Amino acid sequence: MDDIYQRSLDRHRETRGKIEVHSRMRLESMDELSLAYTPGVARPCERIAEDPAEAWELTWKGRTVAVVSDGSAVLGLGDIGPLASLPVMEGKAALFREFAGIDAVPVVLDCRDPDEIIAIVRAIAPTYGGINLEDIAAPRCFAIEAGLQDVGIPVLHDDQHGTAIVLLAALNNAVRLLERNLGDMKVVINGAGAAGRAIARLLTCTDTSDRCIPVGQIRICDSRGIVYPGREHNDALKEELGALTNPDAERGDLRDALRGANVFVGVSRGNLIDRNDVETMAPDSIVFAMANPLPEILPEEAEAGGAAIVGTGRSDYPNQVNNVLAFPGLFRGALEARATRFTNAMKFAAIDAIAESVEEPTKKRILPTPFNRAVAVEVARRVAEAARASGVCL
Amino acid sequence: MDDIYQRSLDRHRETRGKIEVHSRMRLESMDELSLAYTPGVARPCERIAEDPAEAWELTWKGRTVAVVSDGSAVLGLGDIGPLASLPVMEGKAALFREFAGIDAVPVVLDCRDPDEIIAIVRAIAPTYGGINLEDIAAPRCFAIEAGLQDVGIPVLHDDQHGTAIVLLAALNNAVRLLERNLGDMKVVINGAGAAGRAIARLLTCTDTSDRCIPVGQIRICDSRGIVYPGREHNDALKEELGALTNPDAERGDLRDALRGANVFVGVSRGNLIDRNDVETMAPDSIVFAMANPLPEILPEEAEAGGAAIVGTGRSDYPNQVNNVLAFPGLFRGALEARATRFTNAMKFAAIDAIAESVEEPTKKRILPTPFNRAVAVEVARRVAEAARASGVCL
Repeated sequence: MDDIYQRSLDRHRETRGKIEVHSRMRLESMDELSLAYTPGVARPCERIAEDPAEAWELTWKGRTVAVVSDGSAVLGLGDIGPLASLPVMEGKAALFREFAGIDAVPVVLDCRDPDEIIAIVRAIAPTYGGINLEDIAAPRCFAIEAGLQDVGIPVLHDDQHGTAIVLLAALNNAVRLLERNLGDMKVVINGAGAAGRAIARLLTCTDTSDRCIPVGQIRICDSRGIVYPGREHNDALKEELGALTNPDAERGDLRDALRGANVFVGVSRGNLIDRNDVETMAPDSIVFAMANPLPEILPEEAEAGGAAIVGTGRSDYPNQVNNVLAFPGLFRGALEARATRFTNAMKFAAIDAIAESVEEPTKKRILPTPFNRAVAVEVARRVAEAARASGVCL
Repeated sequence: MDDIYQRSLDRHRETRGKIEVHSRMRLESMDELSLAYTPGVARPCERIAEDPAEAWELTWKGRTVAVVSDGSAVLGLGDIGPLASLPVMEGKAALFREFAGIDAVPVVLDCRDPDEIIAIVRAIAPTYGGINLEDIAAPRCFAIEAGLQDVGIPVLHDDQHGTAIVLLAALNNAVRLLERNLGDMKVVINGAGAAGRAIARLLTCTDTSDRCIPVGQIRICDSRGIVYPGREHNDALKEELGALTNPDAERGDLRDALRGANVFVGVSRGNLIDRNDVETMAPDSIVFAMANPLPEILPEEAEAGGAAIVGTGRSDYPNQVNNVLAFPGLFRGALEARATRFTNAMKFAAIDAIAESVEEPTKKRILPTPFNRAVAVEVARRVAEAARASGVCL
């Protein structure tokens, strides 16, 4: 595992980055030049000026996503700034190409003010068909995503929703396999950040009016223990999460929360709990320890504590919870339907598509592998269908 | 010529735009995914955080140009807005790929305030190695370009400098062929906009301290005739151009200006002068009528009036003054040298490279054809050399 870092550095130096831009038209004669550029290009320009929807047919817009970051919360590295975040955004663009056939480009922003970031993304939005916000720190990421929902193209912060969607697909399959019911269960989420909030909102059916059964009970923990409303030094996010999940203001630490819980969801730091903690959970517990590269608890340890189903973010253990199962199909479906935004129905369509793409789930196989290319196709189909049904399409 | 517009529209609809994004790394195994994306990508990120110059080696930055427009002055179509300008910016990106092997992407901006445009371009600048401003209306384009010169990567408004550079290459070869001297000649520029200003500044050696011999006399005309300082209703641009070229405030119309002139440079509208006007010019006159698609005067008409050398913007006549001779090599050279901005020396290096790439200039061949791929290579080499000599490189 260790030399992956050196090999990655060498590979990046060899290729000078991971994406490149090609021409789709030949430009080898004056006639070809006149068709692609002046004077011929004046006609497609005029058509779009007459009917803006034509931009989706006559330019790259309808197949293009911008991967936008301010570099403030990059991988486990934290706030390394826009320039240093570029390799991640390029990587994401390469994944969009490979897994969904989408043309994606990075846009890293030397800017930190949420209102300014919103203004910048609104200004550049005509260029693209969708915006993938990436690696933007909480709580800034929430205001930025919310402030862009009416920009006319779908905007999604993947660190929130990509993770939440794949986690929910895994959880749905785990619960089905154990013949349990999420409505009766207690879920403990450790990590009160971008992903934790998105997971909590999906599990509580926030923003959703139909088809959604809220989980029995949720507790969210951070480094100071269980989050509750009115807790000292709560910021707006903690206050929101406390009110959403713990209105009666139960107090305690992560260990208290875990006692009797059915599900542990870790979106925090490595090596936080051990087998003794899992032993205090309810029988047949479910553990998703997604911290990277070191999970909150290693699978062998969780199983020793009695966990029935274990997933991590890692590729060297079963049940990898990997965003790549979600974002390529999500955006592809949104682009195909010409959705103007993402709805909760589109997110639940992606959850179902991912969960159902495993024909016979087993304890060691509750999610498809990231290399099952059929997943993105099916996610895209179901997301596009949900978008059309939601009435949010051009 | 006419059906070029319909064929261009059909071609655009067929290809859904002109550029696409590819991955430079294979992503077909978990190992490849770990090298290009998490966890391996953390290492190139850390390297860039330690040493920002590594971004030019480890990402697409060092080979990438953004083609930025607000859609306010697109071709002859005028202010059609950002979305409708997208086909032009994509076309330019395709030309960058084909003529200079550069990865270029469009960025169209839904924004008109020059200060906001400057702020937006500054914010997105870490993503790219250079910025090509395109089809932004005068006088806004001047403030925007000036406000971005310290952003740390080269920024150039091609409608000003691309046109001016190719025109000067043509003019230099024409003057050499006629065994004349620019220092003794009178040049009339018709069109007091972006290109007119850039041409006037190069011809007067503005911004240049060495190697440059100013042209004998310049008159700039607009629809109200010769521009002079203090003229009624002059805006700041006209006032600047008047002071630069006509400090004694000579007055008159275009016809007055042309009388006895050696060179006509048209960057205005079609069909403005005729053979009688050319007859009033000095013997062996030079006519560059660059309005598109209809020139200020057709070549046959200019020759009938006694012009010795005639150029236009058109591909169906000799001596095509085409920006594609300049911008690919200009940016390629700047990227190769890691220039932080464009200097006048770099522009003059491009002028010389273009002019000298015609081995034996004749009256019908004072410029290379746009399809001579060696031109961009030589422009890049000379521009990079000039950049290094100017001391503006990272």
